Amino acid sequence: MVVVPEGDNRERLLCPDCGFIQYQNPLIVVGAVCHWQQRILLCRRAIEPRRGYWTMPAGYLELHESTEQGAMREAWEEARAQIEIEALLAVYSVLTISQVQLVYRARLLSGDVSPGPESLEVHLFEWNALPWEQLAFPSVRWALQHYAQSRALQQFAPFVKPTGESEELE
Amino acid sequence: MVVVPEGDNRERLLCPDCGFIQYQNPLIVVGAVCHWQQRILLCRRAIEPRRGYWTMPAGYLELHESTEQGAMREAWEEARAQIEIEALLAVYSVLTISQVQLVYRARLLSGDVSPGPESLEVHLFEWNALPWEQLAFPSVRWALQHYAQSRALQQFAPFVKPTGESEELE
Repeated sequence: MVVVPEGDNRERLLCPDCGFIQYQNPLIVVGAVCHWQQRILLCRRAIEPRRGYWTMPAGYLELHESTEQGAMREAWEEARAQIEIEALLAVYSVLTISQVQLVYRARLLSGDVSPGPESLEVHLFEWNALPWEQLAFPSVRWALQHYAQSRALQQFAPFVKPTGESEELE
Repeated sequence: MVVVPEGDNRERLLCPDCGFIQYQNPLIVVGAVCHWQQRILLCRRAIEPRRGYWTMPAGYLELHESTEQGAMREAWEEARAQIEIEALLAVYSVLTISQVQLVYRARLLSGDVSPGPESLEVHLFEWNALPWEQLAFPSVRWALQHYAQSRALQQFAPFVKPTGESEELE
């Protein structure tokens, strides 16, 4: 049943028999904008949602994994890419889906990339050839734009979600 | 039962009757080192774990809440403090307990603070009077040290967990 437990101030799902409270919490997504000789790595999704559309390597953080380790793992799983983390590019709170996305800027250790099981293909795009109309999620667009703004910077405060931008697909 | 679902590469808790997979994911903690006229706000915990020890305001991020909103809510709930976020001070991946802690640096809008229901007392400490031996968690110490290192900076990359430091209480 849904109640506000004693000492709490929000409704939670509580089992009236055993007292177990099923907390629901936001999920952490980790990913990276990865570059190699002025080109950007994107993956074309082999899975829903947004199968066939392009994204940076990203996915849910696992237990007992640092956010940097998670971003490196996703780059490997989705694009067989080995990366070196350079900076925390952005922290996006995506409220409609209760995700906190931590996106790193990373350097590919080689241009040797290939699709993992969740990607149809992977590609190193020249900046002027990025598939802006075929991006999987708004946060991919934000991350690419923020990458461009931070490219010359070594130390910077992470970007946040652009104000007024829709979190939904348009 | 515990199995590696099709298309996955990790063990998950799966219901053999209905196919429901119970994913377990890291939790997000948000908090803030809050300052007022060179003094730092700390709260003495009224709840376990670490009842009676001092911490900055911090707690679990709720659904449909940005990380900044969560840090502001926790400052209000634990210390009746109104704050203005200045910077993302640190992102700590605490692996043993699978938490990602996002700690902001914030300015108190007034020195008028008082204990919320989860605090025994709250206090604005002079830097030289901070209760280093009575801190609730290692990440409170890290955050205070990182606050000191960033105090003069307006724009900076968030700190991460100090290498080699124990995540456990000593």
